Amino acid sequence: MGRRSVEEHAARVAALVAPALAGLGTERVPLSTARGRVLAEDVTSPVPLPPFRNSQMDGWAARADELLHAPLVLPIDGVQAAGPAAPRTLSPGAVLKVMTGAPLPDGADCVVPVEDTEPAGDAVRILRGRASGTFVREAGSDLAAGSVVGPAGALLTPRRLAALAASGVAAVPVRRRPRVAVLTTGEEVVPPGAPLAFGQVYDANEAALVALLEEAGADPLPPVRTPDDPAAFTAALDAALDAADLVITSGGISHGDFEVVRQVLEPLGAEVGEIAMQPGGPQALARIAGVPVVGFPGNPVSTQVSFVVLLRPLLRAAAGLPPIVASTVPLAAALDSPAGRRQWLRGRIEDGRAVPVGGPSSHLVATMADADVLLDVPEDVVRLEAGDPIAALPL
Amino acid sequence: MGRRSVEEHAARVAALVAPALAGLGTERVPLSTARGRVLAEDVTSPVPLPPFRNSQMDGWAARADELLHAPLVLPIDGVQAAGPAAPRTLSPGAVLKVMTGAPLPDGADCVVPVEDTEPAGDAVRILRGRASGTFVREAGSDLAAGSVVGPAGALLTPRRLAALAASGVAAVPVRRRPRVAVLTTGEEVVPPGAPLAFGQVYDANEAALVALLEEAGADPLPPVRTPDDPAAFTAALDAALDAADLVITSGGISHGDFEVVRQVLEPLGAEVGEIAMQPGGPQALARIAGVPVVGFPGNPVSTQVSFVVLLRPLLRAAAGLPPIVASTVPLAAALDSPAGRRQWLRGRIEDGRAVPVGGPSSHLVATMADADVLLDVPEDVVRLEAGDPIAALPL
Repeated sequence: MGRRSVEEHAARVAALVAPALAGLGTERVPLSTARGRVLAEDVTSPVPLPPFRNSQMDGWAARADELLHAPLVLPIDGVQAAGPAAPRTLSPGAVLKVMTGAPLPDGADCVVPVEDTEPAGDAVRILRGRASGTFVREAGSDLAAGSVVGPAGALLTPRRLAALAASGVAAVPVRRRPRVAVLTTGEEVVPPGAPLAFGQVYDANEAALVALLEEAGADPLPPVRTPDDPAAFTAALDAALDAADLVITSGGISHGDFEVVRQVLEPLGAEVGEIAMQPGGPQALARIAGVPVVGFPGNPVSTQVSFVVLLRPLLRAAAGLPPIVASTVPLAAALDSPAGRRQWLRGRIEDGRAVPVGGPSSHLVATMADADVLLDVPEDVVRLEAGDPIAALPL
Repeated sequence: MGRRSVEEHAARVAALVAPALAGLGTERVPLSTARGRVLAEDVTSPVPLPPFRNSQMDGWAARADELLHAPLVLPIDGVQAAGPAAPRTLSPGAVLKVMTGAPLPDGADCVVPVEDTEPAGDAVRILRGRASGTFVREAGSDLAAGSVVGPAGALLTPRRLAALAASGVAAVPVRRRPRVAVLTTGEEVVPPGAPLAFGQVYDANEAALVALLEEAGADPLPPVRTPDDPAAFTAALDAALDAADLVITSGGISHGDFEVVRQVLEPLGAEVGEIAMQPGGPQALARIAGVPVVGFPGNPVSTQVSFVVLLRPLLRAAAGLPPIVASTVPLAAALDSPAGRRQWLRGRIEDGRAVPVGGPSSHLVATMADADVLLDVPEDVVRLEAGDPIAALPL
């Protein structure tokens, strides 16, 4: 596929992946499992909020215009606790004891707080009047019945879930999460916890990709690891294409003699080649049986950088999550960078300055764990001085 | 408990809750479920990373000092793919084909990339030499065996999980999450989805508190809702004290005639009173059977604000999550605030300016869903002008 720029390859990945993620449809989930999901449709409240006119205080429901000459003693027309009730009307010239949240009787238009009153035998002394509307929460003053309480695209935060629950909504339509298959390859790769023979390495990509996918709002399928055997990889790929909305592979797309992903995907029409990016130069891209397949190089740093640069923005957008944007910060010290490759250095922000963490090499997976950002050195830049601005993309 | 300041009450909550969250101990979880957890102990790598000296390129392993007079033709000593292998030694005066990630034979000290070579019958023509060390990844150059690959207190990000997996670590010791019981009360409160009689409201606090707890790294127990019945509340409380590290109640602590939480908790030694905060004035605090019990008022905005101000910092600290800190932004328009109460207005940051969302009333639960921050108006401030700085605490 020639030597593409990162921008050009990212655009091709987006053209293939974004439409596949856009049409995933809707599922209904109970509020209790909906945190972090995104509403697929506007949700309206079947009730007004508050559902009925009620008291904001523990006190006495009254008619404001009967209190103009306070202090005065008024007879008691009963007590209204919060809770299910029959609607009632306040007798003229009387007051009715109300608890916070209790329905206000018809006729009452203010609440006198209990601290502005005194007992007076069977009656109550009102020490001070209140204007009409005081300490009254009108029905619908927070939200009118039939209004949107959760707009399509809204992220389900705790406060949004509270608003939906207050409206009586017990389950919500959310965007279905994309199911993503993760296929890691490599004759040398063994799962963590297994014994390690000479020549073998532990698989870091499965753990990284599953966690990155979850963080980006996707639903990773159980990952599958295959050796560099075309039949085994083909079987894993076929199963992934059946089950997933998107397939990610790691490894097997370079120029060696045993590049299993390249061997299997190229005859199926995949583009496999180099892009002007480091780490993450080798890349593959295909649409097979209608499913996008994105192939990353197998080095664990390359895999993670490739995901963050090429797929994370698309998955977050599909999930309705806000984009993660780079900020521009001054470099703490000068650095050199190879010409012709957009370099993503792992770094940290320390005292407002960008500090690279470890070297540029793509095998530094342990070192990368201490990084917070990717420092973006453009393709045509070979040297930056201390204090020069650099774009820092949060990991 | 008198009328305490927010700071004083927050300090008392912290004094009661923080020690209970500090001694929760450790549990071991597989990497696949460890994302977002926090390491309880330093984790060391049993292997060096990389585990063995290997090639960074597809190319030819060689002795750098034998290539000084390149171009030259050298015999081929075999092929080394990536994968389990027997250690071998490069014959003097020869080269050995290596794939990326394959072990480098003893004696070789550089790799000549395949693009700097040409076939030459049974041998290979090296067009250009390379300095010793070129394209060689030394064993341990990322991490020495026995070094810490995950320090105690580290948040398990995708990149940290990748580093642990690369080290062969399959399960990690993480801080146990605090189990938190949520008890919502109120004769008027019914679950979302149920029919709503006159005088009833839907329970928003259960949904809000469970989601807020999850977000703060806690493990909420299945929430329990009780009417304003002391026996029912006592039974729910007893079960919660048995199962939980922390109990949160909502409702029933004000000055009405039917304050079930106050009625049950005060004889058990709880402090129940008012703090100088709006929303969230009524507050309760107790230690019962060794378990901290924190009582919030029942208005759904009050409950959420109380959690964010009083408990979220403690839970996040216990979970090892970074603190959420307020930023100072200019107010978009003037506002008035009551004297003697620290006011937490719900707001948004728009074009770098703080904009209140809805009024100060604590029943505006739907309106709160559109807020991103709490705007903090100090107790002694009754008026702020447009452009005045205000602290905005992210929700």
